[in-house]
Amino acid sequence: MTVFDLPDVTNLIHTALAEDLGVGDLTTRLTVPPGVRARAEIMAKEQLIIAGLPLVRRVCEACGRGATVEECVDEGAPVAPGMIVARLTGPATTLLAAERTALNLLQHLSGIATTTADYVGAVAGFGCRIVDTRKTIAGMRALQKYAVRCGGGFNHRIRLDDGILIKDNHIVASGGVSAAVMAALAGAPHGIKVEVECATLADVREALAAGAEAILLDNMNLEDMRTAVRLVGGRATVEASGGITLESVRDVAATGVHIISVGALTHSVRAVDLSMSLYLER
Amino acid sequence: MTVFDLPDVTNLIHTALAEDLGVGDLTTRLTVPPGVRARAEIMAKEQLIIAGLPLVRRVCEACGRGATVEECVDEGAPVAPGMIVARLTGPATTLLAAERTALNLLQHLSGIATTTADYVGAVAGFGCRIVDTRKTIAGMRALQKYAVRCGGGFNHRIRLDDGILIKDNHIVASGGVSAAVMAALAGAPHGIKVEVECATLADVREALAAGAEAILLDNMNLEDMRTAVRLVGGRATVEASGGITLESVRDVAATGVHIISVGALTHSVRAVDLSMSLYLER
Amino acid sequence: MTVFDLPDVTNLIHTALAEDLGVGDLTTRLTVPPGVRARAEIMAKEQLIIAGLPLVRRVCEACGRGATVEECVDEGAPVAPGMIVARLTGPATTLLAAERTALNLLQHLSGIATTTADYVGAVAGFGCRIVDTRKTIAGMRALQKYAVRCGGGFNHRIRLDDGILIKDNHIVASGGVSAAVMAALAGAPHGIKVEVECATLADVREALAAGAEAILLDNMNLEDMRTAVRLVGGRATVEASGGITLESVRDVAATGVHIISVGALTHSVRAVDLSMSLYLER
Amino acid sequence: MTVFDLPDVTNLIHTALAEDLGVGDLTTRLTVPPGVRARAEIMAKEQLIIAGLPLVRRVCEACGRGATVEECVDEGAPVAPGMIVARLTGPATTLLAAERTALNLLQHLSGIATTTADYVGAVAGFGCRIVDTRKTIAGMRALQKYAVRCGGGFNHRIRLDDGILIKDNHIVASGGVSAAVMAALAGAPHGIKVEVECATLADVREALAAGAEAILLDNMNLEDMRTAVRLVGGRATVEASGGITLESVRDVAATGVHIISVGALTHSVRAVDLSMSLYLER
Amino acid sequence: MTVFDLPDVTNLIHTALAEDLGVGDLTTRLTVPPGVRARAEIMAKEQLIIAGLPLVRRVCEACGRGATVEECVDEGAPVAPGMIVARLTGPATTLLAAERTALNLLQHLSGIATTTADYVGAVAGFGCRIVDTRKTIAGMRALQKYAVRCGGGFNHRIRLDDGILIKDNHIVASGGVSAAVMAALAGAPHGIKVEVECATLADVREALAAGAEAILLDNMNLEDMRTAVRLVGGRATVEASGGITLESVRDVAATGVHIISVGALTHSVRAVDLSMSLYLER
Amino acid sequence: MTVFDLPDVTNLIHTALAEDLGVGDLTTRLTVPPGVRARAEIMAKEQLIIAGLPLVRRVCEACGRGATVEECVDEGAPVAPGMIVARLTGPATTLLAAERTALNLLQHLSGIATTTADYVGAVAGFGCRIVDTRKTIAGMRALQKYAVRCGGGFNHRIRLDDGILIKDNHIVASGGVSAAVMAALAGAPHGIKVEVECATLADVREALAAGAEAILLDNMNLEDMRTAVRLVGGRATVEASGGITLESVRDVAATGVHIISVGALTHSVRAVDLSMSLYLER
Repeated sequence: MTVFDLPDVTNLIHTALAEDLGVGDLTTRLTVPPGVRARAEIMAKEQLIIAGLPLVRRVCEACGRGATVEECVDEGAPVAPGMIVARLTGPATTLLAAERTALNLLQHLSGIATTTADYVGAVAGFGCRIVDTRKTIAGMRALQKYAVRCGGGFNHRIRLDDGILIKDNHIVASGGVSAAVMAALAGAPHGIKVEVECATLADVREALAAGAEAILLDNMNLEDMRTAVRLVGGRATVEASGGITLESVRDVAATGVHIISVGALTHSVRAVDLSMSLYLER
Repeated sequence: MTVFDLPDVTNLIHTALAEDLGVGDLTTRLTVPPGVRARAEIMAKEQLIIAGLPLVRRVCEACGRGATVEECVDEGAPVAPGMIVARLTGPATTLLAAERTALNLLQHLSGIATTTADYVGAVAGFGCRIVDTRKTIAGMRALQKYAVRCGGGFNHRIRLDDGILIKDNHIVASGGVSAAVMAALAGAPHGIKVEVECATLADVREALAAGAEAILLDNMNLEDMRTAVRLVGGRATVEASGGITLESVRDVAATGVHIISVGALTHSVRAVDLSMSLYLER
Repeated sequence: MTVFDLPDVTNLIHTALAEDLGVGDLTTRLTVPPGVRARAEIMAKEQLIIAGLPLVRRVCEACGRGATVEECVDEGAPVAPGMIVARLTGPATTLLAAERTALNLLQHLSGIATTTADYVGAVAGFGCRIVDTRKTIAGMRALQKYAVRCGGGFNHRIRLDDGILIKDNHIVASGGVSAAVMAALAGAPHGIKVEVECATLADVREALAAGAEAILLDNMNLEDMRTAVRLVGGRATVEASGGITLESVRDVAATGVHIISVGALTHSVRAVDLSMSLYLER
Repeated sequence: MTVFDLPDVTNLIHTALAEDLGVGDLTTRLTVPPGVRARAEIMAKEQLIIAGLPLVRRVCEACGRGATVEECVDEGAPVAPGMIVARLTGPATTLLAAERTALNLLQHLSGIATTTADYVGAVAGFGCRIVDTRKTIAGMRALQKYAVRCGGGFNHRIRLDDGILIKDNHIVASGGVSAAVMAALAGAPHGIKVEVECATLADVREALAAGAEAILLDNMNLEDMRTAVRLVGGRATVEASGGITLESVRDVAATGVHIISVGALTHSVRAVDLSMSLYLER
Repeated sequence: MTVFDLPDVTNLIHTALAEDLGVGDLTTRLTVPPGVRARAEIMAKEQLIIAGLPLVRRVCEACGRGATVEECVDEGAPVAPGMIVARLTGPATTLLAAERTALNLLQHLSGIATTTADYVGAVAGFGCRIVDTRKTIAGMRALQKYAVRCGGGFNHRIRLDDGILIKDNHIVASGGVSAAVMAALAGAPHGIKVEVECATLADVREALAAGAEAILLDNMNLEDMRTAVRLVGGRATVEASGGITLESVRDVAATGVHIISVGALTHSVRAVDLSMSLYLER
Repeated sequence: MTVFDLPDVTNLIHTALAEDLGVGDLTTRLTVPPGVRARAEIMAKEQLIIAGLPLVRRVCEACGRGATVEECVDEGAPVAPGMIVARLTGPATTLLAAERTALNLLQHLSGIATTTADYVGAVAGFGCRIVDTRKTIAGMRALQKYAVRCGGGFNHRIRLDDGILIKDNHIVASGGVSAAVMAALAGAPHGIKVEVECATLADVREALAAGAEAILLDNMNLEDMRTAVRLVGGRATVEASGGITLESVRDVAATGVHIISVGALTHSVRAVDLSMSLYLER
């Protein structure tokens, strides 16, 4: 059994509720009598992988006392259209205040998990990891990377301080692949590997000779990838990156790369369809 | 000439940089000599509407002193592939620290503006507005709605406190369309109109009779929309909503509705392709 | 029965306690033995309308565990001198730490509610609303507007983003009443009405002709107000504003205006008298 | 020459602008063309003591670049009706965004300074200080106490951690005046004096015998105050407090007390009248 | 029995956990199965005075639900090596996440309390207080001063706003000891005493003549201190400061000074040794 | 030439100034005339390595406008007693407000750098790195690790999310060294190495067999360390940890370990002596 290790979301939920509620829910104040209690169901409207379900309770708690949330599926589980993923009870005013913020988070994160699972499924059998990138949406980095894990993917570095990835612009600024790799190896913290982006097979050879511990093949064609994997011969981790789609990912995996990074997992998220229905309690 | 009125982004930029930089840019520290100055260009890699360009300067300023940013196109302008949208100069370390955060924001917001412009173009000639919804990404509400304006769209209410939209769950909790509309009209601030969601033509009739000032037709077919527009006869603003796509939006506009709201503008954003190239200064 | 929809006060209470407590309550630490438990009563010392009572519990909770608060009257209720409005029990140190912050909030908000109720009473029978303005005290906007509602008043727009009110300085900057009103109508969100400030009857005519949906009569005399109401003839909401006092407000209401806005409700608040007495528990 | 030592207002100004602007100034966006530059004057509409003038620049700076503010009078100076206190120039949009927040602060703080100066004037010749209390408005403590200084008053303790004032409820909890005073003296930081509230002359005698360094006469009549001053005989600072008004304050000063504290200076502030007029620049 | 009045640590604990956890505990996620429950003991590894024990519970609560903390000794108590100071139970993941942050705080604060107690013990019998200074570690001021109290010390002023201490640089800027003292006395809040730093006996005489209420003897030798105490003759509090060590402190106390301030209590803290051991629950 | 990459300190400086200044510098307000300008010098009073010098300017800027700071030595440079490290000019009030906060930071960070440099010097010639730990002071993690780099040391992982270090408590919770190492290797991000704490040579053998990429020898004696290094034979990085002092560190380095971690670098910091002298400008 797996745990996905939800990051601290206190500030994010506060921010999200503040930008949705402002000084309060005007429509509900005017139309819903204060004492009314209700229950609500959140239902999947399409096939999806659920991610972010624990946030529903957190959002409700932040909206006031007295609401309870029952999660009906496990985080990371596949969910069929029509399935209830959570049941809520509490004051109608609280449930209505929480509705949009909770759904926005759940639809976005489940969208990421669902797409990630599609990529993971597409490379099944190749022992190749699908990983995310730093191409995330402002403020959502930790949650988006959590959702990638829920979908069966792995995380690339989280920030600029927890990994070394020498990219094209670093190579320009430092005077070449060898110089950059050797400088990085000399100063790298002992727990962190040095990875370098290579645009050509010549770059790959230079990086290997300099001692790179991981090599990112940037926008290479399949044949060059295969050659690169052979050149590396297990001496470094090989990552493929650059415009890889659900259509092309299996061919990329077949080249023997260990890691495929997909920016679209987090920068171009399709929200999956989930909705909440409210019922008055008698 | 138009102004799009960028909201206050100080906190958002601080959050975005903090989650990307952590305690500092490890790769750059190890590979780029401190004194190096550089210039950089941000280039469009596809046809797009630009939105968020002023954020590039804000991100650079937040990364340290000494960087300058020249914006090469107007906010909201169409940009062809290969065009430079901004030129940056400054310490290489600053430009590298700012790169990902600036591009993430620019690609996301320009993605929204570009898609919005597609919808706006699709309904040209019908005098019908494309508007956004509250289906936004946590923490990005104000900026996403700004990007919709950059793309030629209009904003629906921003939060729960600046508009009245009686939805299905409110009707359940308040005991019916008439009851809800009348309660809202009695208490509404004098500057805010009362809008109500209608699922059927019967709902529309009831809403009109109760005095609703705007009517949202929820997931109606085209024929019912046409009938609804006729029923309303100019006595209220008519909004269409629910699963409207770029393919279907022109037909919806042709029914005579005044407003078409599209959740996908902000909940399912495709990032457009922009990249930054760095050059050493001599 | 009414709900007044208390805004989120977490940050405000944190700020208020921080500025009152600093690193801790020195007097209590030196004079009150740690284990002492007490009860306390908050009593009205004059006739008033209570507002902010739920904040007492919030302040106590923020001061530490173990205090309980019983509210003895309903929010918005009239309270006679000598009546107990809340009973507290808990560690004496907690009650003493909470005392000043709780009373400061309660006295200020009840002061607003009480004065508002005086204005509302003065216009009874005219079907005219008493509303607040943006002339509020920094950081207290949402709570002050809540207190106005507790006193039977209504809220004007809350911020610059949730209403359109074209004032004298906008008219100067945009080139006249007509130009400003028409520009606003063209761009206004579909849920928000366009209001314009008029200093003369000529302005009123121009505003009406341009299509203004609400008209603010700024510092007009009673006769001009009456004429303005007649000119408008129900085609727009009419608001009176400018130096209206408890003495003059009934005459203003008698002119037929729909709305009277009173800046002094929130910019010149008289705190009503409430005090807390502590008793040791045996 | 005097300096009043403005406290740090960065957070307060940010909060005040956020609650007034929301996501932006809708009316100005719709009615004022973006490129328009303007100048503005802030004018006193009544006789007052100015306090908070440096905040005008701070608010403008926080609203955007390019506005300049010229202060026309000294902080703490008396200002006659019709006098200009500040001249502003800059983009019309910036000046309009700043207007309400700047005026709200200026009117509130100048109101405090003006009333304080009235009290200070009323006790002229008696060598008696007018001081404030902790009865302030949430979030405004430091600024309100600054305004009291601008008006010629002095500050009582600022928080619970920078002074010792044993009040009625502490006496209840600690077992009497003597016990409380002696406990406080034993533990007081060496730089802070021990003050105790006395309701009767017997309390005063007990407090003096216990070694109190300052004595607050709570709601005593004039004759008891005179007796108390005589009893103390210069061995402690004597403060009068409790319902003292502008009418009664001179009589209180005549009793020989050293300090008169007035809660109404900060808990019941009348905003003085100042307004801003905008002029287009050619 | 004593209470040490823990200051508000909510923000500090949030900051400390954020800087230690980042987006989550990677090692624990990979190696510890999610459902595992554990208990843990925090044990002293040397003789010490405990301070900060209540923070252990606060840290655990901030890490998630379900952990309980039993404090086994009283705050401020002496603890022998091998003694358990706290027992924790809960999810292993929570205890592991809290471990380092809780221990870091506990070891630092207990280090301060232990060293303070050493100084207090060294001056036993002289009726002389050991006090701290403003030489603290950024962000830790209130907690460090709390730990000094736990060790039997007293606090000097907490900030620049709650005490008056005229130092060498103020004397330079104000034109001499007399001028500075008299200016301070004229404006000092009535609850705060005026203290002045004296480098020579001449300074002491000048300070006394000007009316100083406390005198800090800065880096004087023992003989001058004795003379200074005699000169003062009980008319002011006398504080010794400057490079006083555990070796020299008793001699300083013997000169008759009332207060000895020791910057090293907070600026050069040795963490005492405490460790946490984890046991699986069956 | 080296860059040490100062982390973002905006919040820390704000916090540090807030806790030192409160609502303002009372002594300076009372004793220093407002218009006075001054210059000041910060001088080393002992031999030290400087770290944190750029913070002096940042603190001054945060205290107000008009102060300039000239840094007289390079960050990380050795400084002899009597040398000036920075010259400041500006309003005396600003320099006095900044003094304590700037010195506190500078003395603490230079203390870390100085001690680190002592350790680094002690192992000279062995090609062995001195590294820090997570035993840091709350809120100071990033700056303390920066100071270690200034002193010639290297950083161990920064947080729990950027490295994998399986410690005793993880081994307890996961069922043994092998199980823990293999689980970590299976899930580790591809850029991060797996390190495991070993208490015995048997643990070392088990860790190596399981594939550990780094091995921490916890509190081993020198002979066991030598054996462990031989056992590892270059297949993993070897780190020594546990109670290593300046006296013992060279012997530890001689065992052939690659990394020596020293908790005392950051948990038991001695502040080095630096002081600021003020001079009036004529």
